[in-house]
Amino acid sequence: MSKARDTEIISVGTELLLGRVVNTDARDISEMLSKIGINVKYHTVVGDNPQRLRDCVMIAKERADIIITTGGLGPTCDDLTKQILAECFGLELELNEEVAGGLYEYIQFNGKLTQNTYQQAMLPRGCTVFPNTCGTAPGCGFEKDGKVVVMIPGPPKECNAMFTLSAMPYLQHLSEEKIVSHSVCVFGMGESAVDDVFAEEMNAMQNPSMAPYAKESDCLLQITAKAHSIEEAEKMIAPVLEHVCSKLGDYVYGIDVDCIEEAAMALLREKQMTFATAESCTGGEIAKRFTDLPGASAFFKGGAVTYWNEVKSLMLGIPPELIEEKGVVSYDVAKLMAEGIRERLGTHMGIGVTGLAGPDGDGINEVGTVFVALATAEQTYVSELHLGAFRPRSFIRRMAGNYAFDMMRRYMSGKPVLM
Amino acid sequence: MSKARDTEIISVGTELLLGRVVNTDARDISEMLSKIGINVKYHTVVGDNPQRLRDCVMIAKERADIIITTGGLGPTCDDLTKQILAECFGLELELNEEVAGGLYEYIQFNGKLTQNTYQQAMLPRGCTVFPNTCGTAPGCGFEKDGKVVVMIPGPPKECNAMFTLSAMPYLQHLSEEKIVSHSVCVFGMGESAVDDVFAEEMNAMQNPSMAPYAKESDCLLQITAKAHSIEEAEKMIAPVLEHVCSKLGDYVYGIDVDCIEEAAMALLREKQMTFATAESCTGGEIAKRFTDLPGASAFFKGGAVTYWNEVKSLMLGIPPELIEEKGVVSYDVAKLMAEGIRERLGTHMGIGVTGLAGPDGDGINEVGTVFVALATAEQTYVSELHLGAFRPRSFIRRMAGNYAFDMMRRYMSGKPVLM
Repeated sequence: MSKARDTEIISVGTELLLGRVVNTDARDISEMLSKIGINVKYHTVVGDNPQRLRDCVMIAKERADIIITTGGLGPTCDDLTKQILAECFGLELELNEEVAGGLYEYIQFNGKLTQNTYQQAMLPRGCTVFPNTCGTAPGCGFEKDGKVVVMIPGPPKECNAMFTLSAMPYLQHLSEEKIVSHSVCVFGMGESAVDDVFAEEMNAMQNPSMAPYAKESDCLLQITAKAHSIEEAEKMIAPVLEHVCSKLGDYVYGIDVDCIEEAAMALLREKQMTFATAESCTGGEIAKRFTDLPGASAFFKGGAVTYWNEVKSLMLGIPPELIEEKGVVSYDVAKLMAEGIRERLGTHMGIGVTGLAGPDGDGINEVGTVFVALATAEQTYVSELHLGAFRPRSFIRRMAGNYAFDMMRRYMSGKPVLM
Repeated sequence: MSKARDTEIISVGTELLLGRVVNTDARDISEMLSKIGINVKYHTVVGDNPQRLRDCVMIAKERADIIITTGGLGPTCDDLTKQILAECFGLELELNEEVAGGLYEYIQFNGKLTQNTYQQAMLPRGCTVFPNTCGTAPGCGFEKDGKVVVMIPGPPKECNAMFTLSAMPYLQHLSEEKIVSHSVCVFGMGESAVDDVFAEEMNAMQNPSMAPYAKESDCLLQITAKAHSIEEAEKMIAPVLEHVCSKLGDYVYGIDVDCIEEAAMALLREKQMTFATAESCTGGEIAKRFTDLPGASAFFKGGAVTYWNEVKSLMLGIPPELIEEKGVVSYDVAKLMAEGIRERLGTHMGIGVTGLAGPDGDGINEVGTVFVALATAEQTYVSELHLGAFRPRSFIRRMAGNYAFDMMRRYMSGKPVLM
């Protein structure tokens, strides 16, 4: 493969052009490629139309070194990606016996046989076959005319799995350098604050390189190294990782972690602890987010969603007079919510959240005012947050949840709970 | 404008090519255009690079009648969309005094002045200006060389608002026909079942036309009419809408409704009723979904997330012996959960959900087995669901929630609660 690795992703499917689905495939692939230093220069979406797809492939041949297609590999007659790509590169499709055998077994097991099923086993002569671990249509890769072509199925789950397991190694294999990347996950500092801390170093660094990325409500710092072997690249990254973590200190909630609740779960497992939630403005979202994780039941006993004031008294024993006196969005109510649920459910930790997620105000507090409390055996911590009066409801609720998980993480790892 | 209305959406932004964000703008615009009968033929994504953007625009001029760009209208130096588009169509940019005045006021009010702010007021001569209701950069539209060009900012909120409020009327204005579309929202029947019911009619219909679309866990039937006026198109749709609704009967949960919880909320408002939730396998997701809706607090008092068995006894008074005897995933436990929370919180309705969302099994029930109960003043209804052993956890949880909202909707509108 040539050194230049300009890439175009062509996604095939009329459903994308009708706006029925969003093109997450192109995003996912772009993200994976950016981590190994392959530059995606174009995304193209085209419908299930042979002539238009052919035109798009010819344009891509002109302007890209690597062409990746998603979609159009299935057994129905609008699935035409392989035919068109083979044609554009002057290759024949031929029946791949191994793939056909696998399909035959799959069909016997699943009891469905369509006359076009074997079309899926027709692949460009000489290609590398990528097995499909989540469906039937295989993908493939080939090199021709100085270009690299990779074809992946469209369903996001199949696309993601095949790209990770087969296409990434295939593309890395073509390259002499190995690229390794790790992400330092940060909560409580924005992208620009992280940028400020490391601006000078980042400008001076080439390999490994370092770049901050904003995520929905936290951010990460990605460190990437290129070397002749994975081991060598890892060795180059290690001291940078250590330096970054020590400089960002308690703001780091994990390395290569998907979300902050996952970091909290790892610590709950390590410390063998349990927790419970009492939620007002987040309305069950914190419980929902944690129980999105398989295995949550080992650590999360349950919780109360106390949306109405009377329910706060009823389920958590908070005196109505106190709510009256202090206001429902207050330090004291959050504290008693966390303590109440911890005591009632008999957990190591209790979370209490009360606030104003908007869009309507309560005439007292600014929208975005949230109190997040963490009750523990030793003491109760309360964070008072002002998350922004003009932020959408969904952001305020998500951010409040992040603070709750972050306080748990800080407590369990022996760090100052309050920032 | 010519009759042909092939459209290309060009999204400009390196962040899309790095996979940091997903291209929801192209999806949202495509969806809106498909409803007024404009065919999107291509999506293209290109980085903040003048030469590559220029090349993409020239390709689009060849193959599309309408070119819509998103992104690259802001005040920073990589925002180059207007310059390049004007250049490709031989137009000058000129300072739009009205826009400049508005920006000046905005800046005075917000206290931020950057030297490039006025760049945002530089617009192609003779264009129609689209005001930005959520940010500073205006969009615009113009006709030249037999093509229509529309430029919209990239941030999804700004894009969506401006496209809805300004670009859609602009594009409709260019067309002699008006297009109106309504969606019949269906729960409990899949896309292919709906397709089966109306297949013959759909094939025979041209204007109005009818098409079913699958959504994440329900589906909708979209009816579209073209006419010389909106009123005429509405008149053409009305009898079809009536026919479809009467044929699908109780499976219809609304017309042009975003989600089933919204349909439930409309009925709660109409009937002035309240509800509460007791959730096990959905882990707070039902409460979370309902409280995602602004104004939820008028109807939702609160709920219990009873993840552990002991918490079901503690918070809802379910006898441990009964859980032992019937199993936690059972008709009886769901029933007592719904009744328990309704009674404790004093609401009109109570929801109880217990099931196995996976991926791990419990050795007794198949993954995807869920019992959803609705307790009312008169009686308690329980649905036993088998949502598919190979479905992801997120699907099973979401689907269970849909059933809960659907049962509430059916009860409040006097329809049979169980399908």
